[in-house]
Amino acid sequence: MRTRPSSGQQVRTADGLVWPWYRYAPPVTESATFDPLAGDFGDEAYREAVIDLLGVIAYGELSAFERMVDDAEMAPNLQAKMALAGMAATEFGHIQPLLDRISALGADPVEAMQRFEKPFDDFHAHTAPRDWLEGLIKAYVGDGLAADFYREVAAFLDKQTRDLIVGSLADEGHAAFAVEQVRAAIAADPRVGGRLALWGRRLMGEALSQAQRTAADRDSLTALLAGGIDRPGMDLASISRMFSRITERHAERMSALGLDA
Amino acid sequence: MRTRPSSGQQVRTADGLVWPWYRYAPPVTESATFDPLAGDFGDEAYREAVIDLLGVIAYGELSAFERMVDDAEMAPNLQAKMALAGMAATEFGHIQPLLDRISALGADPVEAMQRFEKPFDDFHAHTAPRDWLEGLIKAYVGDGLAADFYREVAAFLDKQTRDLIVGSLADEGHAAFAVEQVRAAIAADPRVGGRLALWGRRLMGEALSQAQRTAADRDSLTALLAGGIDRPGMDLASISRMFSRITERHAERMSALGLDA
Repeated sequence: MRTRPSSGQQVRTADGLVWPWYRYAPPVTESATFDPLAGDFGDEAYREAVIDLLGVIAYGELSAFERMVDDAEMAPNLQAKMALAGMAATEFGHIQPLLDRISALGADPVEAMQRFEKPFDDFHAHTAPRDWLEGLIKAYVGDGLAADFYREVAAFLDKQTRDLIVGSLADEGHAAFAVEQVRAAIAADPRVGGRLALWGRRLMGEALSQAQRTAADRDSLTALLAGGIDRPGMDLASISRMFSRITERHAERMSALGLDA
Repeated sequence: MRTRPSSGQQVRTADGLVWPWYRYAPPVTESATFDPLAGDFGDEAYREAVIDLLGVIAYGELSAFERMVDDAEMAPNLQAKMALAGMAATEFGHIQPLLDRISALGADPVEAMQRFEKPFDDFHAHTAPRDWLEGLIKAYVGDGLAADFYREVAAFLDKQTRDLIVGSLADEGHAAFAVEQVRAAIAADPRVGGRLALWGRRLMGEALSQAQRTAADRDSLTALLAGGIDRPGMDLASISRMFSRITERHAERMSALGLDA
């Protein structure tokens, strides 16, 4: 374990960000007595933003879990159903550590999730898949988009929170199944490609519009991206670069599926 | 590790059954090269019965998972939803080891599950809960009934299969949540007790009728219970005692919920 340098000293993190060392939370020790509030989370706005972020990710995973299990009912066979249900169960498994962290930060995890029910429920209401392939694409593309976005934001957080978030985004290889199924369907009947490409664009549009609405509603999240006196943040140019990166990765996923972005 | 006695020698297992030693599968080593077919599973009827049993449990857990996630949508709040969804996710986590074992026994796990789609789908179609409490009771009572039944059957199996099955039935404390919620609802409005008691009896009736239909369709499962030349089995009297035990435990669960069985 490294010793802590004097307060205010800056370090360069693995992803190249200069970061005030004192923002590093203590090494992850799942001890009941560990109280982040007493330590490095003195900045109340930062703490609230982290709670919001963990809440939005947790509720996003819960609602994705529910929708994927629903969508798994459209599976053409039991094997396919197991695969999508497995993807859902993986998401569900990521929720509890996020909620535990919210509790450790002194907030009510259910309340933290509740704030984000509406945007996600709206997103799912607007993107109910009409068949198995649309459901698969939604799982793959939606998950990927969310993961890209949260990873971008996580780069601005203390190491402990960042590791927790990045860990909660691992898909454990389930995405390969979606790619394989969609490609096989297009190979069997190339006409479905046009409809599914449209579907992918619609998912992207709905996700962006809900994300924007959420950011507008929750000042803490935008403040997190904007940074603070002693915290690096994003200016408009870097926010626009972030959206370019997210859009690019979306296009890569669509192309992996054999679809035009 | 004990050395293997000469073939045909009998041992008394932990639960008091005299058991041909050679039926003991090798110690559980998750090695890809382990081939149970080459070892102790020479009895083809026994192997088929075990595959059937693992298939019925696996499909039962998959269908319970799907129904519980559906029923979780009726939850009065996010915390309650998380609790039922958590119970569902635990069930899902039990499926893969069962399927892996079916594969290790040389059978197709999807095929092994598929045979049991109809009885479970019928059971769920006949027992769609009308509200959150009915859904909770179904999860608690249905899971409990299934677990009791599979545990009874597992007592007749080789140790490795038995341990696998018993492990797949652990509810990891989720049941306490159902009990607490139902008792609180009855305390708040005692009139619901009558309707919910009726519901519990209906669940038991539907479960028994589907179990009987399944047993009648799958000779291998009844043969497993009946035993064989070198395998202990159940006569009619012990089958009737088994059903008494299962009914008794069901009554205990209903009483834990504060309901008449």
